[in-house]
Amino acid sequence: MVKSALQVARAAYKPKMPKALYGSVKIEEGAATQSVADQEEVNKLFPNTYGMPTLKFVEASEKTNYPAINVGVILSGGQAPGGHNVIAGLFDGIKNLNSGSRLYGFLMGPGGLVDHDYKELTGEIIDEYRNTGGFDIIGSGRTKLESKEQFDKGLEILKKLDIKALVIIGGDDSNTNACVLAEYYKAINAGVQVIGCPKTIDGDLKNEMIETSFGFDTACKVYAEVIGNIQRDCNSARKYWHFIKLMGRSASHIALECALQVQPNICIISEEVEAKKLSLDDIVTDIANAVARRAADGNNFGTVLIPEGLIEFIPAMKLLISELNDFLAHHQDEFNAVPKDEQLAYIRKSLSADNSKVFASLPDGVARQLTLDRDPHGNVQVSLIETEKLLAEMVGNKLAAMKAEGKYSGKFASQVHFFGYEGRCAAPSNYDADYCYSLGYTAAALIGAGKTGYMSSIRNTTAPADQWIAGGVPVTMMMNMERRHGEMKPVIRKALVELDGAPFKYLAANREAWAVGTEFVYPGPIQYFGPTEVCDQPTITLKLEQGK
Amino acid sequence: MVKSALQVARAAYKPKMPKALYGSVKIEEGAATQSVADQEEVNKLFPNTYGMPTLKFVEASEKTNYPAINVGVILSGGQAPGGHNVIAGLFDGIKNLNSGSRLYGFLMGPGGLVDHDYKELTGEIIDEYRNTGGFDIIGSGRTKLESKEQFDKGLEILKKLDIKALVIIGGDDSNTNACVLAEYYKAINAGVQVIGCPKTIDGDLKNEMIETSFGFDTACKVYAEVIGNIQRDCNSARKYWHFIKLMGRSASHIALECALQVQPNICIISEEVEAKKLSLDDIVTDIANAVARRAADGNNFGTVLIPEGLIEFIPAMKLLISELNDFLAHHQDEFNAVPKDEQLAYIRKSLSADNSKVFASLPDGVARQLTLDRDPHGNVQVSLIETEKLLAEMVGNKLAAMKAEGKYSGKFASQVHFFGYEGRCAAPSNYDADYCYSLGYTAAALIGAGKTGYMSSIRNTTAPADQWIAGGVPVTMMMNMERRHGEMKPVIRKALVELDGAPFKYLAANREAWAVGTEFVYPGPIQYFGPTEVCDQPTITLKLEQGK
Repeated sequence: MVKSALQVARAAYKPKMPKALYGSVKIEEGAATQSVADQEEVNKLFPNTYGMPTLKFVEASEKTNYPAINVGVILSGGQAPGGHNVIAGLFDGIKNLNSGSRLYGFLMGPGGLVDHDYKELTGEIIDEYRNTGGFDIIGSGRTKLESKEQFDKGLEILKKLDIKALVIIGGDDSNTNACVLAEYYKAINAGVQVIGCPKTIDGDLKNEMIETSFGFDTACKVYAEVIGNIQRDCNSARKYWHFIKLMGRSASHIALECALQVQPNICIISEEVEAKKLSLDDIVTDIANAVARRAADGNNFGTVLIPEGLIEFIPAMKLLISELNDFLAHHQDEFNAVPKDEQLAYIRKSLSADNSKVFASLPDGVARQLTLDRDPHGNVQVSLIETEKLLAEMVGNKLAAMKAEGKYSGKFASQVHFFGYEGRCAAPSNYDADYCYSLGYTAAALIGAGKTGYMSSIRNTTAPADQWIAGGVPVTMMMNMERRHGEMKPVIRKALVELDGAPFKYLAANREAWAVGTEFVYPGPIQYFGPTEVCDQPTITLKLEQGK
Repeated sequence: MVKSALQVARAAYKPKMPKALYGSVKIEEGAATQSVADQEEVNKLFPNTYGMPTLKFVEASEKTNYPAINVGVILSGGQAPGGHNVIAGLFDGIKNLNSGSRLYGFLMGPGGLVDHDYKELTGEIIDEYRNTGGFDIIGSGRTKLESKEQFDKGLEILKKLDIKALVIIGGDDSNTNACVLAEYYKAINAGVQVIGCPKTIDGDLKNEMIETSFGFDTACKVYAEVIGNIQRDCNSARKYWHFIKLMGRSASHIALECALQVQPNICIISEEVEAKKLSLDDIVTDIANAVARRAADGNNFGTVLIPEGLIEFIPAMKLLISELNDFLAHHQDEFNAVPKDEQLAYIRKSLSADNSKVFASLPDGVARQLTLDRDPHGNVQVSLIETEKLLAEMVGNKLAAMKAEGKYSGKFASQVHFFGYEGRCAAPSNYDADYCYSLGYTAAALIGAGKTGYMSSIRNTTAPADQWIAGGVPVTMMMNMERRHGEMKPVIRKALVELDGAPFKYLAANREAWAVGTEFVYPGPIQYFGPTEVCDQPTITLKLEQGK
């Protein structure tokens, strides 16, 4: 395997940890906990793992002797920078408990547990992956661990390998399922603890006890690097509006953090669009007005950040998509019989008046995507819609109309970008390298303490790493009941952007100045070796959330 | 102006220079030169600037006294990392000649000279831009300085500002024009020297005396960073083929350098496609076969690098585009009268048999782009064609056909990317920061020596910077005669990828292994503060070209 010079140099990095974890630890128990809502229902579903106290690890004067233990680990869902460091921290942590401990990785996600695909992760393998990006050490996958059959099948291999604890590294859904699994194994006395770790670049798994999900820091910094570069280009060539879509699923955390880092002219926040019940035309008009105001100052260029999930937060689009899904489910054969070039007209006349109007307002390409590119269940594949092109095109049309009315006299040309895969597997920033290693090491400590149904937690991360606080949070504490596929389910509540939170308020307070002025900031690439103010900063989101 | 932490830290960087430039210099003249071809014609067109010797600056024991001099500077064409450092080096260089010297920047490209738009670049302004990306200090533009009227108009403002030397920072065309301007000002005894600097991320301005154009190093490293991240994702999720188009105009240098850095599964080189007279179907078939071979090993993922200029290097596409341009120029009204959904069929039956077949093989979206999106002269806008989507779609179709024949049994899903604006304005790597600063400083030395019609040259750049060689190359030396817009013109010969050059040969020797295996390399982001083997490396292209 050829390694880049940076990989070689970076392999030697020793992640920083909370001070307490360097020696022997003991547990300080907090008060008993409650789920964030629906306490009675959640309690009923988790009789064995509900209400447990929060935990904090503090330095102990005496060393505890732990038996050797076999531990399994799973990477679940989309990649996020730092996954390899969680595993390295876990490995070092269980070796610290007892040097005879062993770590097994299940391959290609939760499916590896069910299908009994695994490999032992030796020190030699672990050393190859320290401080690297990606999940390629064992791969990841999207199989959902939900059924008793899967749990029992998994238990077979866990028993066979004498695995006493399983660490599941995943997002909100995977941690929900980890907790269901913890509850089940406890209920049947399987003798297997289950510990979760908060992963996702989307940043939507966070709460009072979980400050951030790992990977968010690095991914945002990679996106901010390239957006900053684009902004510098934009400000040099002075002739393009760049429409930049950013990954992040439903939540707009990534777009918001990038905006805080680069100060673009415009950043759309889906949660605000929904709260204000904006239409697509409202959004397009807002952008076009900003373009026109900048053009009046001679600035025919700018940047617009667009969160991936936008479309579904526009109430009118949501209604349209819903009717489309419904209509096509019942009229697929009729639709298919219509000649290709009459299909859009056919849809327009078949929809209700309001939705037909919205549909007619869309560029042909997008209208076609909505009707043709459907998933195996017949549903519109919203994630395939190129929102960045949609908005660029509609803004262009709007400006042409404004020009005809004498309300705009600039030049408008656009470029579009979509960033996602560029950041999910970047080598972790120092923050993520440290945070992930600490999460893994803490998971080992939770295992040593015999805990199950907990998520590994590291807090106070805007302070230097030695002041970070390591502990555990009962997963049930983050749950509420939500309707999923027509059924009420206990799930970890997804954290969307809060419109009364400090990060959004900072954007809201400054965006007028950023829209009119050209106040671009150029963050540059992630640095690993430079001064601490360059290399060891958390996200601006986190700093603002913590009042720093 | 809010500055990022990295910008603040990076402002303090002192670019490294060739040892000779730190003290007083004297000139060592080489032999008289000849143009690379068409010597007689070029000589005739440049009676005053043809045949001059190459120059090398060496340390002098005595200090020369220079009068104060006013110098103008122009950024021409597309952005490239390091432009600000050329200007900073030039500024420091002319101040070193005489502290009373002044620097004027013409705004938004060569147009600023003609329109008399300029600003004085003071030390305070220069300090704001040291080691930063972008051309925003004075902006850039694509106006071509070609006519006597422009030259005379420019001379008015040069005279007014008492400017005795003009530095033009640009690509091959801009340097050609700089030389025409140098010749003209010399011929009319205008008293204005003209010096060129080799700029372009595309890497196509290089020859025996010009090792590389500035910006190529940084831009390639930014692209290699994000491609490396995508490859790590690809290797973790194991479910996508990523089709990645890279800027670079006609030449495939960027795609090639990125391939050398990241070791993708496939990298297309336009120059090879042309030399082997490959059809679009040949290229698609090659990729599909590689996909099928990897699928047979269970690897349904991979990466394909595509140079921006590919389409025009496919002989059959070139013919098709040429006939399309011709046909539509003469039948625009008839074409416009055809109903939209019959336009493609109309084109198919109007073209000659061969071209019609090629046209019919294209996905509808691309076919539509070829017929509808035309520039103001009615020509196909080749740069707008989304080659990455075109290839992904055609490979998908080819694989479906192969599956039907039982020749392929994998899963194929694709993602597409296009990188260009992400890298053109990145903060320069140490290499580019040093190289650019040295180019600018050398330009000042050439001015001090009273030279005109020279390009600033820094050689031996794979060695540590103190061993670099500073000098000047007569621009006429790089010229030959080429047909442009129906007329024979003297131009700097564009450097395309040489199929018998070491960089391409290295790719050719390894690509079979890279296609079948998964030998991805992950370069990571540009580092400015780390160990020298991480921070101070030139491109692999340059190392291979110099046998290192």
